[in-house]
Amino acid sequence: MQQKEPWIVIAAICASLIFLATGSISEAGKTVALPGQPTVSFQQYAGYITIDEQQKRALFYYFAEAETDPATKPLVLWLNGGPGCSSIGAGAFCEHGPFKPSGEILLKNDYSWNKEANMLYLESPAGVGFSYSANDSFYTHVTDEITAQDNLVFLERWFDEFPEYKGRDFFITGESYAGHYVPQLATLIVQSKAKFNLKGIAIGNPLLEFNTDFNSRAEFFWSHGLISDDTYEIFTTVCNYSQIRRQYQSGSLSLPCSAVNSQVSREVSKYVDAYDVTLDVCLSSIESQSQVLNQMEYTGTIDVCVEDETIKYLNRKDVLEALHAQLVGVDQWTVCSDVVKYEMENLEISTVPLLAKLLKSGIRVHVYSGDQDSVIPLTGTRTVVNGLAKELGLNTTVPYRTWFQGKQVAGWTQVYGNILSFATIRGASHEAPFSQPERSFVLFNAFLEGKQLPPPTVY
Amino acid sequence: MQQKEPWIVIAAICASLIFLATGSISEAGKTVALPGQPTVSFQQYAGYITIDEQQKRALFYYFAEAETDPATKPLVLWLNGGPGCSSIGAGAFCEHGPFKPSGEILLKNDYSWNKEANMLYLESPAGVGFSYSANDSFYTHVTDEITAQDNLVFLERWFDEFPEYKGRDFFITGESYAGHYVPQLATLIVQSKAKFNLKGIAIGNPLLEFNTDFNSRAEFFWSHGLISDDTYEIFTTVCNYSQIRRQYQSGSLSLPCSAVNSQVSREVSKYVDAYDVTLDVCLSSIESQSQVLNQMEYTGTIDVCVEDETIKYLNRKDVLEALHAQLVGVDQWTVCSDVVKYEMENLEISTVPLLAKLLKSGIRVHVYSGDQDSVIPLTGTRTVVNGLAKELGLNTTVPYRTWFQGKQVAGWTQVYGNILSFATIRGASHEAPFSQPERSFVLFNAFLEGKQLPPPTVY
Repeated sequence: MQQKEPWIVIAAICASLIFLATGSISEAGKTVALPGQPTVSFQQYAGYITIDEQQKRALFYYFAEAETDPATKPLVLWLNGGPGCSSIGAGAFCEHGPFKPSGEILLKNDYSWNKEANMLYLESPAGVGFSYSANDSFYTHVTDEITAQDNLVFLERWFDEFPEYKGRDFFITGESYAGHYVPQLATLIVQSKAKFNLKGIAIGNPLLEFNTDFNSRAEFFWSHGLISDDTYEIFTTVCNYSQIRRQYQSGSLSLPCSAVNSQVSREVSKYVDAYDVTLDVCLSSIESQSQVLNQMEYTGTIDVCVEDETIKYLNRKDVLEALHAQLVGVDQWTVCSDVVKYEMENLEISTVPLLAKLLKSGIRVHVYSGDQDSVIPLTGTRTVVNGLAKELGLNTTVPYRTWFQGKQVAGWTQVYGNILSFATIRGASHEAPFSQPERSFVLFNAFLEGKQLPPPTVY
Repeated sequence: MQQKEPWIVIAAICASLIFLATGSISEAGKTVALPGQPTVSFQQYAGYITIDEQQKRALFYYFAEAETDPATKPLVLWLNGGPGCSSIGAGAFCEHGPFKPSGEILLKNDYSWNKEANMLYLESPAGVGFSYSANDSFYTHVTDEITAQDNLVFLERWFDEFPEYKGRDFFITGESYAGHYVPQLATLIVQSKAKFNLKGIAIGNPLLEFNTDFNSRAEFFWSHGLISDDTYEIFTTVCNYSQIRRQYQSGSLSLPCSAVNSQVSREVSKYVDAYDVTLDVCLSSIESQSQVLNQMEYTGTIDVCVEDETIKYLNRKDVLEALHAQLVGVDQWTVCSDVVKYEMENLEISTVPLLAKLLKSGIRVHVYSGDQDSVIPLTGTRTVVNGLAKELGLNTTVPYRTWFQGKQVAGWTQVYGNILSFATIRGASHEAPFSQPERSFVLFNAFLEGKQLPPPTVY
């Protein structure tokens, strides 16, 4: 270990004194200028909202106001899933935030969602990213219920810090395990009669119904050429994917299911990104950490290593300081938490009944799916949404059709009762705005405006 | 109609006189320098081989010798399908020939197959491209049998013109309906004991077995998000795709099948290329012929309008002259024939038994599939190859696994008995070398060398 130079220690003490003079870490609403960022016209804030004063549990957020006219634009909360992954590390820096890290600097994202909304990114539950519980017994058994309750407290207190947003049109968005977080939080808001102006929710490649979502994976692998006919066969005769997942979570993977899982893993291979079966993989993420990044060949325009860049960036001392963030009980910021022990049986909670109740309360529900994702494939999601529409007796108001970004097909969509909608994003991964930023931006705009996705223009 | 200027008529007569002085159109082996081409080191030839002197039936070919050491490299025949489409217009100019047309000029193709082989592109049967029958009654009923026989006569006479190639390692390759042409021609060669040194055949996205290949389309559409759950359902209850196709071909599309077809067409839409469900479409090919090409936005590196460019290029008077080609009985060169009336019931001929016989004769068979193609999807092809291996009792010698181009997964492969192999090409269309030229080139090389497709390199 290198000894710290005395001047570093002194500098750290000075920084702490300045910090103490300007406010405590639980003070919200701190403006932010991020190291390496280009000049921008909008305000950014980052900080902690204390959820539990006694247990010293606080959630960290990053808030980017809209690029233009923030006072006229809606407020959008974004939640990544996991469970246990960071909305700032994934959503903000890899998907649809104002900037993308690239080496020492931040590049402007042309398709940032803060062009159309005031974007609030929350690291939740405590233990994720910079969010923490000083009492680390909290981490031993985190549940959907705790997460939703903490998120509600966060919102109530955040609105107190930003009162000008309290009556604003409000949307909750997220992806993957946020298929649990988003409807659960929205339901609590409706139940608690909180005075938030919740208009709608949008969830991408969401986990909604355990068996349907996970079992659709086998057919997706097969139809996209990732597994053989024989291997597809064993998914229906020996062990299906939801069984594998269930057993794996409970730590009791049976021999037959283990054998199926091994065969699938071998055929799919670690060199294919299950979250996007067509995209290149970031090799440094797999096994060549020692390789110099710029010696690698990438053919596409998507930086498949942006997550690596984000990890480097968010662990820089100057970045932590600029964000008013602290590492509490962890050595470094990680995209997905190493400390949170999430109750994995919660994965089996179906959130479809919550979606039904939200729809009955007049909350718009938009479910979208990046179509290259084998983890929560479009096929399972489409079936779940279809079933929900039937259960509620919602008639199809826009039959299954293509939607457009520019002059090309950006995906397919179907709308039920003008309140529930499904869309695929063509060529998009599990984290759709990462691999198809422009198409995702068009979809986000249509969602906010409550409009149909663009049909082909006549030309 | 515009009147021809007298000087054009005179120029045409002069050109004919020069032409007659230098040789007849049936003379083979003419060297070629294509208008707008860059300087190259290899020889090119183009011309006609007469198949039937009485009926004046002649097939047109384009032959590009290998870039380096042609005397040491194998000879490869390439056949496009249709039936009725041009191997020169598709294979040579859009896929893997030495050049790709771009406006007035030809660009060098970095992944041209003539880097590794002497490439012979044949327009077959007569009526396709520049190939013709002066007696146009030939066109009224063309069959697989006639095509294969004419192709055999072509080869015999072509080898007479190019005797140095007669003992050379010889491979027959092709795609789509060449799933009929290639095994049928190879079988005739084996049966006729022709003195060609046939080593193997390779067929991409081939039509092999009518029901399996066409019915796999429904699931491909569904699993890739192009049709809804409801529409997929009617494929199994109302009318399946092979029924639609069969009825359409016989001109007796029933009302239920017609309704299914309409619903599918509406959902898939004309703005999606069924031959590559992820690639942009060439809008000028669809409905905006009046648009100026360079005003359009294309995001990828693949020129999706290269077929349009090829049509323009191959109809240029100077190009026809350079190729020693004539338009006989047609106004212009087309990618797929307007005059040939192919016996469409021939589509139902299974070529799987021919593949079995070829394998028994020791001919290597490689079947590959661009995995973005919904017309002849990988799923049907994989099932057919699997079934063939089982029927012949060929054990798996390379289990289903990924193969690599550079450091990324280029597709999946399985090998049976070291003689029959299957491979997908990831991110590739029906015409795989068009959309994935580099990956296709790697696959082509491995095929020629009789080697396994590259596994991951350890790094």
